[in-house]
Amino acid sequence: MSGAGQFIQKVRIDDAFWSATRETVRREGIPYQWRALNDMIPDAVPSHCMRNFRIAAGREQGEHAGFVFQDSDVAKWIEGAAYSLRWHPDPQLEATVDGAIDEVVAAQQPDGYLDTYYIIGGLDKRWTNLRDNHELYCAGHMLEAAVAYYQVTGKRKLLDAMIRCVDGIDAVLGPEEGKLHGYPGHPVIEMALMRLYGVTHDPKHLKLAKYFIDQRGQRPLYFREEGERHHNNLYWKDSYFQYQYYQAGLPLREQTEAQGHAVRAMYLYAGAADVARETNDADLAEVCRRLWMNTVRRRMYVTGAVGSSEYGEAFTFDYDLPNDTVYGETCAAIGLVFFARRMLALEAKGEYADVMERALYNGVLSGMQLDGKKFFYVNPLEVLPEACLKDQRKSHVKVERQKWFGCACCPPNIIRLLSSLEDYIYSVNGRDVFVHLYVGGTLEAEADGAPVRLSVETNYPWDGAVTVSANADAAFALRLRVPGWCRRWTVKVNGEAQEAEVRDGYIALDRAWKAGDAVALALDMPVALVRANPRVYEDAGKVAVARGPLVYCLEEADNTRNLHLVRLGDAGPQDFTAAWKPDKLGGIVELTSPGLRESDAGWGETLYSGENAVESAPAHLTWIPYFRWANREPGEMRVWVRR
Amino acid sequence: MSGAGQFIQKVRIDDAFWSATRETVRREGIPYQWRALNDMIPDAVPSHCMRNFRIAAGREQGEHAGFVFQDSDVAKWIEGAAYSLRWHPDPQLEATVDGAIDEVVAAQQPDGYLDTYYIIGGLDKRWTNLRDNHELYCAGHMLEAAVAYYQVTGKRKLLDAMIRCVDGIDAVLGPEEGKLHGYPGHPVIEMALMRLYGVTHDPKHLKLAKYFIDQRGQRPLYFREEGERHHNNLYWKDSYFQYQYYQAGLPLREQTEAQGHAVRAMYLYAGAADVARETNDADLAEVCRRLWMNTVRRRMYVTGAVGSSEYGEAFTFDYDLPNDTVYGETCAAIGLVFFARRMLALEAKGEYADVMERALYNGVLSGMQLDGKKFFYVNPLEVLPEACLKDQRKSHVKVERQKWFGCACCPPNIIRLLSSLEDYIYSVNGRDVFVHLYVGGTLEAEADGAPVRLSVETNYPWDGAVTVSANADAAFALRLRVPGWCRRWTVKVNGEAQEAEVRDGYIALDRAWKAGDAVALALDMPVALVRANPRVYEDAGKVAVARGPLVYCLEEADNTRNLHLVRLGDAGPQDFTAAWKPDKLGGIVELTSPGLRESDAGWGETLYSGENAVESAPAHLTWIPYFRWANREPGEMRVWVRR
Repeated sequence: MSGAGQFIQKVRIDDAFWSATRETVRREGIPYQWRALNDMIPDAVPSHCMRNFRIAAGREQGEHAGFVFQDSDVAKWIEGAAYSLRWHPDPQLEATVDGAIDEVVAAQQPDGYLDTYYIIGGLDKRWTNLRDNHELYCAGHMLEAAVAYYQVTGKRKLLDAMIRCVDGIDAVLGPEEGKLHGYPGHPVIEMALMRLYGVTHDPKHLKLAKYFIDQRGQRPLYFREEGERHHNNLYWKDSYFQYQYYQAGLPLREQTEAQGHAVRAMYLYAGAADVARETNDADLAEVCRRLWMNTVRRRMYVTGAVGSSEYGEAFTFDYDLPNDTVYGETCAAIGLVFFARRMLALEAKGEYADVMERALYNGVLSGMQLDGKKFFYVNPLEVLPEACLKDQRKSHVKVERQKWFGCACCPPNIIRLLSSLEDYIYSVNGRDVFVHLYVGGTLEAEADGAPVRLSVETNYPWDGAVTVSANADAAFALRLRVPGWCRRWTVKVNGEAQEAEVRDGYIALDRAWKAGDAVALALDMPVALVRANPRVYEDAGKVAVARGPLVYCLEEADNTRNLHLVRLGDAGPQDFTAAWKPDKLGGIVELTSPGLRESDAGWGETLYSGENAVESAPAHLTWIPYFRWANREPGEMRVWVRR
Repeated sequence: MSGAGQFIQKVRIDDAFWSATRETVRREGIPYQWRALNDMIPDAVPSHCMRNFRIAAGREQGEHAGFVFQDSDVAKWIEGAAYSLRWHPDPQLEATVDGAIDEVVAAQQPDGYLDTYYIIGGLDKRWTNLRDNHELYCAGHMLEAAVAYYQVTGKRKLLDAMIRCVDGIDAVLGPEEGKLHGYPGHPVIEMALMRLYGVTHDPKHLKLAKYFIDQRGQRPLYFREEGERHHNNLYWKDSYFQYQYYQAGLPLREQTEAQGHAVRAMYLYAGAADVARETNDADLAEVCRRLWMNTVRRRMYVTGAVGSSEYGEAFTFDYDLPNDTVYGETCAAIGLVFFARRMLALEAKGEYADVMERALYNGVLSGMQLDGKKFFYVNPLEVLPEACLKDQRKSHVKVERQKWFGCACCPPNIIRLLSSLEDYIYSVNGRDVFVHLYVGGTLEAEADGAPVRLSVETNYPWDGAVTVSANADAAFALRLRVPGWCRRWTVKVNGEAQEAEVRDGYIALDRAWKAGDAVALALDMPVALVRANPRVYEDAGKVAVARGPLVYCLEEADNTRNLHLVRLGDAGPQDFTAAWKPDKLGGIVELTSPGLRESDAGWGETLYSGENAVESAPAHLTWIPYFRWANREPGEMRVWVRR
């Protein structure tokens, strides 16, 4: 089957939901994070990121500080800032980015090498621990930043620097004799090289990306040999996953399950999908499909979070989805969005967009505070504050978002995704114009040479009514996604009901559009009581509440403590009331429902009893969108509730 | 209220259930463990315990190996072997124990010091890390062994050696100026000193025990000062419990909750109860009562296991009782038995005996394989084998008992408890003769000078009928425990029904007994469906199946996989069938019941759905006693099941 085509179009977002969120990112998040990268946030973990570049450039004295991958934080920030300039030109921000790029490039070595950890710590040691020391990861992120900034501003300084950096990498690594047959311990450069290739069309860049995909995990294992040669300590020696943590337990083409570090997995699979599409590699596409299916059909939370275990920030096994000890790193949900878009580009199937939407509206958005200044690394589906303090296996679960992190991968990752949301909404393939996500705004594109000019109006995700208007005459097939969660829908063109069939998740309205034509898609958005596959043992006997793309949760702030005592009883979707609450949590559709609350009445200090019953009393339950949890006083939260 | 009095009586066990278990311990466990201590078990972790003593005595060359507390393994083994000689004289075993004692005592230093870790590693470093290095723990266990062996055989060699050792400790530690104001990081010596005091009546021994109880946790904190003085690394620096791990976060008398390392907690509380009773210290008794109540009313599993978290092998917080990540160390359940008996000695309340019975028949017995040669350290209430391999937070949970452990505290601890079961069954206080546990055999004791001669016949725990016969004329109050799990019971004397009232868990039959009098106690032992207090969030909506003192479980071997899909539905206790299965798992009463089994029919590869129902089909469930789980092919096991 054919893919959904090219995603990068001329898109303008003008949307009640997303514009507000993105303005928060632009006004608060981007400046805040720049201050964080420059160690200017009081009471936050210092970043040292920009200082490292100045030290590496000889502009300051000092030692490298922070993680070996600290460089990547500013790379992701530059990338996010670049995207924001695309939809909100801002000479002052652009000047700040230019200044950041000057500092980054000043640290570059004559041979193109650019990694402050080794520039400061000793260039003689570079390329000795690809497995753990993130040189290629940092280069990959900086490459993504360089391409984005070039595409938005036309400025080549960082792009040229990174092309030189890639030349240096290509001179050292590769299949040829005399080169190291290595690859990155943490993928990302694969996607980055594919984006660079899209700009340069230099076959060297495609070849290097493909090499990294294909060489990974081959025997003899590079990471093992490198580790022995340089006495690198293998942190996961006694673990069941060992090299699979690095996505190198097997060659990618032999892998059947999503294993190891979840972010590395998502980034690798996304890069592989890029390579598969560009090289028309049906086998590799099938590998991506297989890993996709394992991920989203057996190892993904209802929020689109992935990574069940804090240990190794990793996948565990099929249907193992604990809600309280979950990892669900924000970056992993972002990686799932990357992977989903690339699978869509390979195959125009609504399933991919469904997951993209699920992760975006739930597992990704939950990573950021309403004010854009605090972040979750871990996104639990069930929180008991006392447990986070007194049960070590839950100590990674925070009840409040944090100002910054020693390992600050997530905050700038959210910024770069949300600032580039334009690139996830539409795609064009031949005469097919796909609308994958429902976001208000406009599209300018070409479909088979015809000018596509669309406007979209909607109050999504709060409402399922979407109006798509044609602003120019052109013949093409408008393919509108009918989300997997939607059971009833209607579509009208200029007020006239249309017979349309959902094929692979999309309806097609193929006609010669006239300016002024209006398509009204009405997606019925009732409350759904979602069950997990019975094999998910942690969710047995429980339901989650969802409405449209949003997963809901109970919070202590609305429902008092001891949320484990709450049951839904016989309440069905029809018993829920949805109401727009403009002043609550930045504006939400709140749900209320009847339910039951068990009590310990009659139990006193009895711990176990064969006689005592557990009494239930009717309760009034208030549900808020999951992604807005933890924006009030810290307290309990719960997604899955017993019937 | 008065206590249950003196437990150490002349008791002979002749019981279908216990004699078989104890014969396994005697014939298999004791010789097996002696071989283990001498590194003679193929494919098992070597102990090095006896070698350490020979090296310390200069009889062999080498380094100390194993943990700093390795000496305690042979101490517990000697103690267990000593008890077995009490009920089964065995000159060959006695000769082996004598030989072991020779090797132990040969390592003793002229000043009485006896700890192979420091004797081998450098005596100049002794007494520099009481917090972590277990000198007093090893001395405590060896002291218990010495007293036991002396009491059984009359031989004083180890006893005299340990009295010298205690003299050495007393010269170094204590409240007096010039002494170190320290105390053990791992309690046990408190109980041991009280036993020694019972033999020597030397006030010094009582005083030292009391000092250890009272000094612990006082400010300035000895462990902090010692740590700073000797640069000892505090392993729990970043943990919420820190010194509470060592039971030293607060002075014992200020503690209100069972916290920190569960075995240390149980041993300390047991020792404190001994001191409270001996010194008539009502305040300390109240402290013990408070910690008892917190332990058994909010932090104990239905199996009598304690310690909810692998991290620190520790208690966590009230009602936090996860079944799958539980620690539930065998030693902690044994410690709870110790604590229970001592609380009974303080106060004749059935609640204490109920917990003693619960822990003994479930959390303790589960620690040993049917063949007596393999052991559990951790005793989970829910096991999914794949999770133990692939979920790090469950990696401490084993699906099979192990041959031995690097830290082998549990195996000899089981042996010493089971071999001394005589000391937990009866107690005498004035004219009250208590029967706490129902175990076939005989008692010879004195009640107010009258000769008490009783025989007990029962098929407990499989059956609730108990016959107690008087074998001599004597007037006393026979106080028979009516277990907390028992709702209906009758008692007859010589066939005549008696009106008796349960007071504090016991009925009293006070009369002038004649030889030949027979008391028939019939404890109704139906199946019970046990609920946990609703505050136990991990058990919400679930029940456990019990019959008499035994908790039951489902195993994969009887019920196939995916036990999380099993529900009890409307099945009540009356729907269960109990049947004696002589050839199954060493002979058990097996329970069968109707139930439901959910399936993933219709789900296919769907992970979440608002439409799919979860279908249930009737199922036939087979339940086995929890303590016999994991005696067949490794597989799933589950105690708590959804309704």
